[in-house]
Amino acid sequence: MKDILIVGSVALDDLETPAGKRDACLGGSATYFSASASLFAPIKLVGVVGTDFPPEHIEALSKRDIDLTGLEQVEGETFRWGGRYGADLGDPVTLRTDLNVFERFDPKIPEGHRRAPLVFLGNIHPSLQLKVIDQLEGNELIGADTMNLWIDTTREALLELLKRVDLLVINQLEARMLSGEDNVYLAAEQIQEMGPKYLIIKRGAYGALLFHPEGLYSAPAYPLKRVIDPTGAGDTFASGFMGHLAKHGDLSFKGMKRAVLSGTVMASFACEGFGLERPLSLTFEEVEARLSALRAMVDLG
Amino acid sequence: MKDILIVGSVALDDLETPAGKRDACLGGSATYFSASASLFAPIKLVGVVGTDFPPEHIEALSKRDIDLTGLEQVEGETFRWGGRYGADLGDPVTLRTDLNVFERFDPKIPEGHRRAPLVFLGNIHPSLQLKVIDQLEGNELIGADTMNLWIDTTREALLELLKRVDLLVINQLEARMLSGEDNVYLAAEQIQEMGPKYLIIKRGAYGALLFHPEGLYSAPAYPLKRVIDPTGAGDTFASGFMGHLAKHGDLSFKGMKRAVLSGTVMASFACEGFGLERPLSLTFEEVEARLSALRAMVDLG
Repeated sequence: MKDILIVGSVALDDLETPAGKRDACLGGSATYFSASASLFAPIKLVGVVGTDFPPEHIEALSKRDIDLTGLEQVEGETFRWGGRYGADLGDPVTLRTDLNVFERFDPKIPEGHRRAPLVFLGNIHPSLQLKVIDQLEGNELIGADTMNLWIDTTREALLELLKRVDLLVINQLEARMLSGEDNVYLAAEQIQEMGPKYLIIKRGAYGALLFHPEGLYSAPAYPLKRVIDPTGAGDTFASGFMGHLAKHGDLSFKGMKRAVLSGTVMASFACEGFGLERPLSLTFEEVEARLSALRAMVDLG
Repeated sequence: MKDILIVGSVALDDLETPAGKRDACLGGSATYFSASASLFAPIKLVGVVGTDFPPEHIEALSKRDIDLTGLEQVEGETFRWGGRYGADLGDPVTLRTDLNVFERFDPKIPEGHRRAPLVFLGNIHPSLQLKVIDQLEGNELIGADTMNLWIDTTREALLELLKRVDLLVINQLEARMLSGEDNVYLAAEQIQEMGPKYLIIKRGAYGALLFHPEGLYSAPAYPLKRVIDPTGAGDTFASGFMGHLAKHGDLSFKGMKRAVLSGTVMASFACEGFGLERPLSLTFEEVEARLSALRAMVDLG
């Protein structure tokens, strides 16, 4: 069992999907990641919230194995995001993005967190992700997420980051933007040349591809008959992947293949309720049941 | 080893894709099916062509294990189809559909073909597919394809057909139209209630789903770095699936899972050249090499 350090956003989300509407849900990449990954391994979270951050959210996270030493609380309001999903539950329309205290986020990694064996850099400005790496020491694997905004606007810092991470976890559209290649396999080749030894390209309801020096692994998504809210599914995928690596300590190709299945399973839970409803009420038995159902779906017999 | 009877169209196709333009290519669902499936098992083709049908096409098909006794040649021109694919290589724009002799196609199954163990009904009018079934006797498995046009315009005949086939092979969009369900898993439930015990939903570059009474199997597509022409990929998928069943004689869930992989591999070859260029020049060694690469891609180790 290895610890995971996650650095990312902690937010309050206003969510609108065809299934309904919820205001000020607990959100943010570090939160989604921690809530799910803590089912697998001890988590150390680094992020920032404002003085308005509801104490019940802190409590909810504290009930899990999440070390909140690195969660700063500063004067001002918490990062607030609002989005509305259409009938296809694809990319949402952003209704608001109030960075608030997150605008001045300057991640300080507590001394005890710096040597965490596994590190995941949630989707924040690549310069901040680099600042985090500068504070790290002797880690076994550093993974990162990013987004279209940074690919578009801060490409240089992002390319610098890619030289310093072992793993990049992005979606198909981001892979296209980053590489300039429409074909996902050609895109992956280009991106691996930018630095990351391991690359995961998420394909939503179609599963995910793991590009590893030893080969390619293609994993399906868990079959969901209804999606309530896809917010955070990407962060939750990463948390299942990293969580699996942390729990089993196997960073081989074989270990990573199985970790991808954990990623798609965790993402499926995230989609089944608004915000973190489902991940925060989940037991590891439920995770294992779904994992074995998914493994059966890909078992050639 | 079992024989396969395929009934469908034989056409001349005018193809335009971002990779180029080819006129009067050998095409049609029965042709695409036969060209690939004949690498696996003996094929009996039933279809119709006009007096203009080039003898070299007959020769090309005769070089494979394809019994052309059931290929009628009648006065008039051969079915001609023209389509143009955009940069995304998705659904083509239809440039021409001249049914010609195909308009009066009335499939007559030669006496010696009626008891073929495996039968595939290519995408023709559901009433014609039903007429074929009326002529069959004691087959082990009858599969069928259909298309959006028939789902829209001849739903009643199609629903009648679905009660009489064991297997339906359609794409995701067709599954949505047929069921009225956006979610692919709910769509599959609805369609299986219409009759077919086995259902395959093709998802293009994302692979295929096999819905079987014993469970769900999810197969990836073979990773193609470049698509030249996707025409016939669906028919070729079906041919690989049916061909595999015919070659190995295993109609169990396990056998069908492996057959789905053969389907996605054959479809990948079809996309690598214009029309039937690639399937007609293919050896079974090439098929096996790609199959083992695909199996490695889904092997959890």
